[in-house]
Order: sequence, then C-alpha cells, then structure tokens
Amino acid sequence: MIEFSINAVHNDLLEQIQQKIDTKTKPIGALGQLEAIVRKICLIQNTLNPALHNPHLLVFAGDHGIAQEGVSKYPSEVTYQMVLNFLSGGAAINVFCRQNDITLKVVDAGVAAKFESHEALIDQKVAFGTESFLDSPAMTLEQCVRAINLGADTVTKVHQAGGNIVGLGEMGIGNTASAAVLMHLITKVDLSVCVGRGTGLDDEGLQKKIEVLQAALDFHQAHLEDIETQYEEGQAQALWILSTFGGFEIAQMVGAFLKAAELGMIIMVDGFIASSAFLVAQALYPDIKDYGVFCHQSDERGHAVMLKFLDGQPVLNLGLRLGEGTGAALAYPLLQAAVGFLNEMASFESAGVSKG
Amino acid sequence: MIEFSINAVHNDLLEQIQQKIDTKTKPIGALGQLEAIVRKICLIQNTLNPALHNPHLLVFAGDHGIAQEGVSKYPSEVTYQMVLNFLSGGAAINVFCRQNDITLKVVDAGVAAKFESHEALIDQKVAFGTESFLDSPAMTLEQCVRAINLGADTVTKVHQAGGNIVGLGEMGIGNTASAAVLMHLITKVDLSVCVGRGTGLDDEGLQKKIEVLQAALDFHQAHLEDIETQYEEGQAQALWILSTFGGFEIAQMVGAFLKAAELGMIIMVDGFIASSAFLVAQALYPDIKDYGVFCHQSDERGHAVMLKFLDGQPVLNLGLRLGEGTGAALAYPLLQAAVGFLNEMASFESAGVSKG
Repeated sequence: MIEFSINAVHNDLLEQIQQKIDTKTKPIGALGQLEAIVRKICLIQNTLNPALHNPHLLVFAGDHGIAQEGVSKYPSEVTYQMVLNFLSGGAAINVFCRQNDITLKVVDAGVAAKFESHEALIDQKVAFGTESFLDSPAMTLEQCVRAINLGADTVTKVHQAGGNIVGLGEMGIGNTASAAVLMHLITKVDLSVCVGRGTGLDDEGLQKKIEVLQAALDFHQAHLEDIETQYEEGQAQALWILSTFGGFEIAQMVGAFLKAAELGMIIMVDGFIASSAFLVAQALYPDIKDYGVFCHQSDERGHAVMLKFLDGQPVLNLGLRLGEGTGAALAYPLLQAAVGFLNEMASFESAGVSKG
Repeated sequence: MIEFSINAVHNDLLEQIQQKIDTKTKPIGALGQLEAIVRKICLIQNTLNPALHNPHLLVFAGDHGIAQEGVSKYPSEVTYQMVLNFLSGGAAINVFCRQNDITLKVVDAGVAAKFESHEALIDQKVAFGTESFLDSPAMTLEQCVRAINLGADTVTKVHQAGGNIVGLGEMGIGNTASAAVLMHLITKVDLSVCVGRGTGLDDEGLQKKIEVLQAALDFHQAHLEDIETQYEEGQAQALWILSTFGGFEIAQMVGAFLKAAELGMIIMVDGFIASSAFLVAQALYPDIKDYGVFCHQSDERGHAVMLKFLDGQPVLNLGLRLGEGTGAALAYPLLQAAVGFLNEMASFESAGVSKG
C-alpha cells in the first residue's frame, strides 16, 4: 500500500521565532499574513534563519473518463494540447515560473495521448486517462497506489536537486468534476456547493454537471457503505474515494504532497484541484497540515469552503481559476518576502529606533 | 497655485486589448484580477504591448504637530529614526524593494530633524514638521502648494531616469490621524469609521484619538463653512482640507501622484495614508483615477471603506498596516505577471489548442 512518515512540526522554537519577528523595526503584527507565513516556514525548517532554495513547480496532467459525460466546456484533447503548450513555454504557468525563477516540470500522470520525450517532461503515465466514474471506478486501487508512489518520486528528485519548496499544479479536462466529488465525500459539504463552473460552464452546463456527479455518487453509494463498514481507519476510505472518483494527476499530487511533507519541504498549495488533492493527503496523514501554504483562493465555487475546512488562509485572492499551479507561482515572491523580512530587517536595537 | 494637465486615458484600444487577452491559452477571464490590471496598464500606455521600466518607490517622510496630542503609540522621533533606518537599508521597504529590483528613494518632506546628505535621500523639507491642527492649520496654503510642487519634481526625476511606474510610500508618526480627517472631509464618511489604531493603539488610545480629531474638526468647522461658501470649485476646498489637516509628506505625495498621471505613468497606490493622498489628488483632478493601481487593502480601519469610495479593487489583502510603501513593493511582481502573461503567453491559434 502506501507508507509515509509524516510528523507534526516541533514547536520548540515558536517563542523565539515570535520574539525575532517582534524585534524587527515595525509595529507588532504590522506585516500581517507575512508574519504567519514566515512563522510556518521557520517551524517546518525548525530554524530562526529560514531559507528558500531552488523552488520547483510540478504540473501533473491527466485525462478523465468523466469528461465524456459533458461536465466540461473543453474537449479532452485540450489536456494533451496544453501539455505541449507547457513544453513549448507558452502557457501562463511558464510565464510566471520564468518571472519568479521557479523550475517548471510537467508530469504526464495519465494523459490520453503519447508524448515524445522532452527535458521538462516526466513520463509517469499510469494509463491513457481514467475510466468514467459514472458507472465504474475511475481507476483500480492498485493504479491509485502506484500513482501516489510515482507522485512521491517526483518530489524526491526535487529534494535531491536541492529544492526545499515545491508547488503543485495540474492540467486535466474534467478534473474540477473529480475534485468536487472528493471534496463532497471528505468534507460532507453538499454536492451543489462543491461543484462549480470549471473552465466556464453556463448555468445549464453547471446543472448538468451536478446531475452527472449525483448520478455517479448514487451508483457508487452501495460500495461506499461497504467500505465504511469494512475498514475502521480513515486511510482506506480516503484511498477508496480517491481511486473511485479521482484522477491520475490528482493521485500523483497526493503522493507528491505526502513526500514533500515527509522530507520537511514547504508545500505551495494551488487552487481547487490541488487543494482537493491536499484534502485527500490530509485525510491520509493529518499532520501534513503543518507543511502547506495555501497560495490563493480560486474563483471556482467550493474553494472558499474547502479552504475553511482546511483552516487555510489564502495568500492571494485574485479571482484566478486557471489551475496549472499559477496561484502558487504568483504567490512565491510573497513567501520570499516573508523570509526576507525576518532575515534582513534591522531590529529596534540595531537600528536605534524607539519602541512604542 | 498648482497646475497639472491630467487627461482620462483613451479607450480606443480597449476592444483590441480585450481580444488579445481572450486569445491567450486559458479560459475566458481565468486570470481574474491580473486581466483587469493589464487592461488598465495597456490603456495608460495606449498600447497592446505594455512594458514596465525602471520601477521606483518613493518614501515621503514628515512629522506632524498633532502627534503631540497623544494620537500615536510612538513618539515623533521615530520618524527621524526610521528615515535613518531606510537609508541604512534595514527597514521592511528596503527588503522588499531589493527583492523586487525596485529603486528606493527617501524624501525628507518635513521631518523635525536634520539629515546629513545621502545618495538615497532627497532633501525637500518644507519645515520641521507641521503645526498641530488641533488649534491651528497644519501648514499655510503657500507651504501646501510648495509641497505639492516639490512632490511633483521627484516624479519628474523618476520619469527622466526612464521609470514608467512609481509607487509612493510614507513615514510620519501621527499621519494616520491626518489621513483619517482627510478621508472624513472628502468622503463624508463618519469620523469614527475613518479613525483606526495606526501603529497599534489600544481601545482607550483609539477613543482618545477620535476625541482629539473631533475637537480639531470642531475648531476648524467655521472656516470650513467659509471655504464652502467662498469657492465654488472643489479644487480650492481640497487644498484647504489638505493644508489644514494634512502633512508635508502627504502633500508631497499628492503632487507626486498628480505628476505621475500627467506623465502617463503607472501609479502604485499603497495603504491608508497613501490612499488618502490619492483621494486628495482625485478631488483636485478626477481623471487621475485611470492611473492608479490599488496595491493592497490595509488592516487600518477605514481603508476598506476608502477603497470602496475610490472604486479601487486591491491587489493584495494581507492584513498589512506598516506603510512605507510596503504594499506597493509587494504587489509589484503581480503587475509584472499581468504584463508578462499578455506579452508572453501563446494564443490558442499559435499553440494549436482547441477553444471551448
């Protein structure tokens, strides 16, 4: 199955961290959320002198059988086409990673087409897309576990390359449908709150999406009850939810998140789909919560509620709904700023400034 | 008096700008507020290929007579001490400007102490601090006009150095008191909504600050009515409000904002005090509104309401309340990202991606 060793951060330094923040030449608390961010980073790194090294952004791509049921405005081919766009440097995530000196890698987790090899592409295809979960599990449990472990491998490589911070993004036509069901089953929030317009469905399209997903839930409901009876632990249930309704890119992101936490890395969580993968990861290993920075609140309906469930305060709120990890790449300079002020600002004493 | 030539932006290219945004490989509107930002930048520059050059951040510093009345947690000397901190590179704004390659200049607009010359310091001292507006105008109308024109000069120099984008910040113990009164008189919002805790007043301190400012308003009220009768134009009234309750750093920021708009530059508006200067500038020349990007919503009470009055959508909302231009410096990478996506992303056609 899966096995990760994830520990809650040590809080031994918390008081000293706060003291260091409060001696800086600014009123107490005046850097707002940047102070919370650097506190978190210090705790993850268990240091008073945090540092961000060799940031990476991994975009996981996969296709979804459920996309055949009319839950997205775009056809499945767009997943493949957008991966090519990532590889040629023309997508939004390319622009933002270039701007902020973030190394971008694209992971084929399960796109329904073959790619030629490319230096920025990691081939981890589990299958040519998932089955439609309308009347079948999206993937087998074996595929799900394999995807999680493959996702973990990508982060191990980032860590070996000296990276101590990683953001995860995704591309997969139909994956807001998948993420909405994961959210519904894990948070118990009404399905209608979890389902949104994705890449731009109109009212009719949104209604149809909700109906398709409700039908899928009804189909699998019997098994869901089996599972709840069969296993006591939340882990097995989370894996069943992920394999039944997830996507290969989502499952690989779950593994990538878990490995990043195991390795003590800072995790930049992107929008609705990335957060749904984080939700699954947290259902599997609750202590992962100490390692995630929620980079933005997506415009996709449901994300605000999901963030509340995760107790996550988003760094940005720009009405983005693009995925690809764009929110994470855009938030990265603010994480640098948080680390920067703690390391570089003068103290009241060193600058000779009177305290209030 | 003052004379600026500020024109509303031309909207001739608006449709073409929107078309260019919508051909990029992303769902329509999926980059949210970044799309609004680059639209604004394109209109200011009247181009489909916007560019940001040589960004500057100017921190205006000045002391306030009203600080003697117990409206701030910190003593006036801190203005001087913090300017020294800016000059030696130890303040938050230094860290954020270094990180984002923004040239930082500090302007002595009216600090109550003398500085030795320094390459990063621009000496434009109008006086050694304002009078306390509790029972006197903060400055004469002549000083106010001189301050506005001096502020304008600093931006002319930025423009001559090839800068087409400028952020303004400030330092001045007591200046949230000044800004709150400016806000109250221009927006007509209740004084109690406009007055906040500044650098960290407790409940008692906040109550006292409101009482002091109400007393000051009562003292000047007779003159205010004179002014309203005497002049028909809003300009003279705005100048009276600014000279009676403003600060030298605020007045210089008003001039800097106006000159930046006249020169067709992009203006990064920071938090509560900078926005109050923008408010005065807009009362003087309403068309300046086309040139301002509101970089963040401050935690200072009143700023959210002020932004609503200005119809400004803040880029960041991080609970900052530090001033110095920190919100502007932190938002700058997001303006770069907005310009970057428009210039660098592939179109659906060029990337061979199917439209939804």
